[in-house]
Amino acid sequence: MELTKQLAESVLSAHPLQDQRAVEMARNGLLDAAAAALAAKEDEGIQKLMALVEQEGGAAQIPVIGQGKKVSRQAAAMLNGYLIHALDYDDVHSDVRGHPSAVIIPALLSQLTDGEAYGDRFLSAYITGVEVMARLGESIGKAHYERGWHNTGTLGAIAAVCAIGHLKQVSQKELAKAIGFAGAQSAGMRKQFGTDMKPLQAGLAAKTAVWSMDLACSGFGGSESVLDGELGFFSLYGDQKLAERRLLEGYGAAWRIVSPGLWFKVYPFCSAAHHAADAILSLLKEHTFSLEQVKQVDVIFPPGGDAALIERTPLTGEEGRFSVEYVIALAVFGQPLSLDAFTKKAISPEMRAWMKRVNRVYDQTTEPHPDAVPKGRFTIVKLTLFDGTTISKRVDIPRGAPGHALSTEDILKKVSSVTGASQAQQILQAVEEGNDAAYLKLLV
Amino acid sequence: MELTKQLAESVLSAHPLQDQRAVEMARNGLLDAAAAALAAKEDEGIQKLMALVEQEGGAAQIPVIGQGKKVSRQAAAMLNGYLIHALDYDDVHSDVRGHPSAVIIPALLSQLTDGEAYGDRFLSAYITGVEVMARLGESIGKAHYERGWHNTGTLGAIAAVCAIGHLKQVSQKELAKAIGFAGAQSAGMRKQFGTDMKPLQAGLAAKTAVWSMDLACSGFGGSESVLDGELGFFSLYGDQKLAERRLLEGYGAAWRIVSPGLWFKVYPFCSAAHHAADAILSLLKEHTFSLEQVKQVDVIFPPGGDAALIERTPLTGEEGRFSVEYVIALAVFGQPLSLDAFTKKAISPEMRAWMKRVNRVYDQTTEPHPDAVPKGRFTIVKLTLFDGTTISKRVDIPRGAPGHALSTEDILKKVSSVTGASQAQQILQAVEEGNDAAYLKLLV
Repeated sequence: MELTKQLAESVLSAHPLQDQRAVEMARNGLLDAAAAALAAKEDEGIQKLMALVEQEGGAAQIPVIGQGKKVSRQAAAMLNGYLIHALDYDDVHSDVRGHPSAVIIPALLSQLTDGEAYGDRFLSAYITGVEVMARLGESIGKAHYERGWHNTGTLGAIAAVCAIGHLKQVSQKELAKAIGFAGAQSAGMRKQFGTDMKPLQAGLAAKTAVWSMDLACSGFGGSESVLDGELGFFSLYGDQKLAERRLLEGYGAAWRIVSPGLWFKVYPFCSAAHHAADAILSLLKEHTFSLEQVKQVDVIFPPGGDAALIERTPLTGEEGRFSVEYVIALAVFGQPLSLDAFTKKAISPEMRAWMKRVNRVYDQTTEPHPDAVPKGRFTIVKLTLFDGTTISKRVDIPRGAPGHALSTEDILKKVSSVTGASQAQQILQAVEEGNDAAYLKLLV
Repeated sequence: MELTKQLAESVLSAHPLQDQRAVEMARNGLLDAAAAALAAKEDEGIQKLMALVEQEGGAAQIPVIGQGKKVSRQAAAMLNGYLIHALDYDDVHSDVRGHPSAVIIPALLSQLTDGEAYGDRFLSAYITGVEVMARLGESIGKAHYERGWHNTGTLGAIAAVCAIGHLKQVSQKELAKAIGFAGAQSAGMRKQFGTDMKPLQAGLAAKTAVWSMDLACSGFGGSESVLDGELGFFSLYGDQKLAERRLLEGYGAAWRIVSPGLWFKVYPFCSAAHHAADAILSLLKEHTFSLEQVKQVDVIFPPGGDAALIERTPLTGEEGRFSVEYVIALAVFGQPLSLDAFTKKAISPEMRAWMKRVNRVYDQTTEPHPDAVPKGRFTIVKLTLFDGTTISKRVDIPRGAPGHALSTEDILKKVSSVTGASQAQQILQAVEEGNDAAYLKLLV
């Protein structure tokens, strides 16, 4: 079984547009990505990256979202990927264990150099990218992420190059080679979580995809079987045997963008803390207590369920995107869980001191809900007050996640909250008309 | 023990120039890299890469070797790295198990934007890069390469960013962060051996180094401890415990560029076949036999000693760079083991048929020579003729390798054979004067 060639063939021959739910989900994905990227347009990191890109120079080919400038195709893929993921406000996917749209959408947008829209095929390519990234996530095995790889980075380049291949309908040979170039440049470390580099790893994967397809189409020589065999991608980064079973099983019969589906975020922080956020907000709604009354907060996860939450004592709001302690503290302090709370601004000493009351607990015995998102996950937030009272709340499917999904209207509100109603409405219209070129132009 | 910060501190505070042998070896390295790169200037791959770089656009900052054009700093690092390694004619280092100069030299050359020479500090930075890459190679463990990573790519970016840090004397914090950016973008697969992508992986590591240092110096946020801990670089790519013991042990007491030392190549193919090449050439000199008389050739390695020689039935000379079968056949057919034999040209059916007489044999019982290069390696070439005669030759240290090293004069001849005597003499003079800017200008 030749995984690389068969993946290329599946990507080129499948017809995702036959599934109307997949098309609708892809439209929601484009809408949500606009909100995530435009919310980050004043980000400090993007200013530094823009300056570095300008220092290198390059053709003015593709706009950078919210920056009023065009840069080269590769640079645009990198910068737009960074922007979509900058605030961790973009979609996630449980099979990927990472952020598909932050890599796939910018890689596809970088193909729109001539101002013409690809229309339906743009959506079809996006669905394909999510499909491949989800399948790569499942095939690479759980240990990949747990060891410290950042799936968005390590899986994103191959997925996005497949999306580009589908968009441009390249030959099977070109796509197999492009997968090889992308695979041999795949990287990204969770060690970078909580820094500017985390979202840049999404952007770099998008850039690698654009570059890898260009290399392949130029006739530059490369392996056409990078996903295969003992020295192949899965052997190096994960589990070859698992990949051989799962990567292509039933390709095209159903679409991962629908099931398990994209998860659009209600809160601008790591999705692994969203269950806890829903739980604490609901406890605060249902009960009356002050922050001084709280003796201890236990946040109970299945083992490994908090792996992405690498910050236990964050110093800034940015680090706090990966801290369930900070999220709980914000809520109990009565502060909104909104973008302003997750900037580079220092967390107050008072809040940092209070955060010590939050403990993480791992529970092997509690049975996960069959529809839990991600699979096998739950979070129980249990408060113990100084008077001995305990109250607790369990969440299996947080708001925004598949099974508890945001509607197009909800996502439109998310866009409006960032851009104002008029621009949001225009973006929605471009997406509904399938006008990807107009969509890109509107991300200003 | 914080590996990342301590590595940064060691790199910034050591004084390699105190060791005159290291300085001389660095000069030889610059000279040899000139030969390797200029020999590749008509390569097809570089034309394709140049066209892609021009399509992206960019400032004209640094010359591309042999191409008569300047491109941006990052693009130059990539293209010059590609060129040095394109023909596999560049130096190797046994601790690295790969090609240090193809990554480090182009990354350093990309810093020469203002036409001023760094002089001694350029040499010092180059020695530092080799030092770090050798230590990374030792620290990451043997299994890294054996699993399928391409050490030149995976170790090169961190090594080259350390070289740049030393050259520019950045702060410890900047270097620690730059190491982090480089680490999180490190990649490269042996699966690409025998294709254009192999040398490009060297170039991409050089480019990543240039970019990572720029990112760090711009104040972009990143981890300052990417080499550390359970989620760190060594845990992901190799062996964290080994790295903690080896990475910094005795840093600065002696220099790896001298011992075990750079290995300058006599032949333009993978160094793992150089022992066999010396052996067969010496058998041909000492005995008289024709190719028809040869019934069987056994090439005897210690187990794993031929891991880099991934081609057993190469179709082209380019693939033949990684085939001991092809090298033996060339010699027995009386053809010179020179650049012309390792191009994209197809190997003749006659020679391909004859190559089936060559077997690889693995021998666990033979004791390696204490000074063998690489450590633990030997190759025995044993010919069996149809008349029953057997003759054999063992090589432990091939020509060009440390212990059997090329002199400056030998390397000058290698340069002359590519450039002609006059340009070679000028390059030598620039190197001897420590004029790195003049050196770069001469690589036309």
